[in-house]
Amino acid sequence: MSSITNREILLVSRPKGMPTHDNFKMIETPLREIADGEMLVRTLYLSVDPYMRGRMNDQKSYVPPYKLDEVIVGGVVGEVTESKHPNFAVGDKVVGYLGWAEYNITKGEGVHKIPPYAPITTALGVLGMPGLTAYFGLLDIGQPKEGETVVVSGAAGAVGTVVGQIAKIKGCRVVGIAGTEEKCSYLRDELGFDAVIDYKAVTDIKAALEEACPNGVDIYFDNVGGDITDAVLRLINHKARIALCGQIALYNQEKPEVGPRVLPQILINSALLKGFIVSDYAKQFPEGMKQLGQWVVEGKLKYRENIVEGFDNTVEAFLGLFRGENIGKQLVKVAE
Amino acid sequence: MSSITNREILLVSRPKGMPTHDNFKMIETPLREIADGEMLVRTLYLSVDPYMRGRMNDQKSYVPPYKLDEVIVGGVVGEVTESKHPNFAVGDKVVGYLGWAEYNITKGEGVHKIPPYAPITTALGVLGMPGLTAYFGLLDIGQPKEGETVVVSGAAGAVGTVVGQIAKIKGCRVVGIAGTEEKCSYLRDELGFDAVIDYKAVTDIKAALEEACPNGVDIYFDNVGGDITDAVLRLINHKARIALCGQIALYNQEKPEVGPRVLPQILINSALLKGFIVSDYAKQFPEGMKQLGQWVVEGKLKYRENIVEGFDNTVEAFLGLFRGENIGKQLVKVAE
Repeated sequence: MSSITNREILLVSRPKGMPTHDNFKMIETPLREIADGEMLVRTLYLSVDPYMRGRMNDQKSYVPPYKLDEVIVGGVVGEVTESKHPNFAVGDKVVGYLGWAEYNITKGEGVHKIPPYAPITTALGVLGMPGLTAYFGLLDIGQPKEGETVVVSGAAGAVGTVVGQIAKIKGCRVVGIAGTEEKCSYLRDELGFDAVIDYKAVTDIKAALEEACPNGVDIYFDNVGGDITDAVLRLINHKARIALCGQIALYNQEKPEVGPRVLPQILINSALLKGFIVSDYAKQFPEGMKQLGQWVVEGKLKYRENIVEGFDNTVEAFLGLFRGENIGKQLVKVAE
Repeated sequence: MSSITNREILLVSRPKGMPTHDNFKMIETPLREIADGEMLVRTLYLSVDPYMRGRMNDQKSYVPPYKLDEVIVGGVVGEVTESKHPNFAVGDKVVGYLGWAEYNITKGEGVHKIPPYAPITTALGVLGMPGLTAYFGLLDIGQPKEGETVVVSGAAGAVGTVVGQIAKIKGCRVVGIAGTEEKCSYLRDELGFDAVIDYKAVTDIKAALEEACPNGVDIYFDNVGGDITDAVLRLINHKARIALCGQIALYNQEKPEVGPRVLPQILINSALLKGFIVSDYAKQFPEGMKQLGQWVVEGKLKYRENIVEGFDNTVEAFLGLFRGENIGKQLVKVAE
């Protein structure tokens, strides 16, 4: 295999604010031979996710920062093309946290075979990290009850679309907040959201929320933070639950932003606010994947993927996340 | 009894910012006769509490606002001086939510006889609402484990002193934040806090906290909000728990304050933040009172009361809460 030249994407400088192409560098390296216990995985699809922005800062966070001049690691679906690993054979389709690279050599830590009942790309989306994030955040923190009102921000993203649909399955009124009419139509017409708010089109987000949530907000699943979250928190009900999943509105700010203090709203409503990362629920992943898979097979849980073609376009696809370009899961197709 | 003239304190205007004497009015009214099922309670002690400030605003909160030109209702310890109520006899010492008045006529709703094992004033403090607030907020939300670091703001108040001592009983490192050297000495020397921070004396609250919390903050019991809370939240550990009990720093602000956004800190630490009011735990009050009483009897739970003499000084005692004058529970002694 030493005749293969691999391509990898490194983080070469830490973004100040919005990342740019200059923060990344693609290099070509010859692939070494695999050793006993290793396998070679050819990347078919790789995942770009908003949380990866946080790892590009040199600061304590829920996952350690990326190191400079090292390959960026994220969700990858690939095919085993060589194996000296006892549990994986050539031809296996696998998913794991691997490098932004055309090939990865791995000992298989955190790499799993993809179950056969859905397309392999779902292992990075509805049946992968984003789906599980939605599942555990909504059900464990949100504890939705029939008839309650659930608001989800970043509703058209890989996580938000699953949150809204699970909330519908649980009999809730679901209100989605997203940033284009196309996204809002998709949520309303294809996924069955009860109300949608195009936050870029409305002049008064709080008034729009009041109209969409005549009974207030019982559960808020927050992917975005910032002004949108400020508005939602003003409408929470007694004993509301807020699942804090992401703050994409704040990820690219160079300095911590100020905003209205929100703790008084949490206090006077005896509300619960819980930050989480999907790995908090690692022990329950099999249960979550089984249920999500069942809903997908039954047609109760739909998903959309936004696929960019070509490894060369990986960085551009990542940057697009912060321009709000994707509906559903953003993927890069690297090979057939 | 119609020969008795009662004195009552009414809320006559809603405070803008810090309350003043002009917001209150004392009136004299002749007492009517009690009817069947009623009793007459002579006030011995009444309680002034920070949460009452919130009820003086005309806004949705965890308790309904006081109505203008009506008597202010709060915690009262009194003696039954006349009774046509089947469950209460003349001479009974009782505690309940009653008017800021020398006498109250009541049907006994929410009024309880005071158990005999501690002074009657404790029914308004360590064995009453503030003690139960500390007990349930710390134990249910905080879930303290041995060796963890607990920070409590407003540490020298009626709630904070109990929080810190229970945290010590549970084997935690306890750091108290208070506003005078006298308060800090009391917490450190008499109550056994491991470290104290006089937030008015330090120039850099975050640096002081870092020194006092070398292992970070696992539990934060917040009574004050504002800048102090901003600083504590920057030091929370993974899976920290924040019991949101009060925000006294913000109660008297005319406009909602802005501050650094705190949700990112909650998110990246998978932290839990929960607002609560003691009545959320009403069903468990007997359990809490029993345990608190046992700790008091055993000498494990100490308390201090700051007693102002005379019903005329009630409003002044209330205003003093916001000047940080009290150590422990602030009470007004109305009669022997």
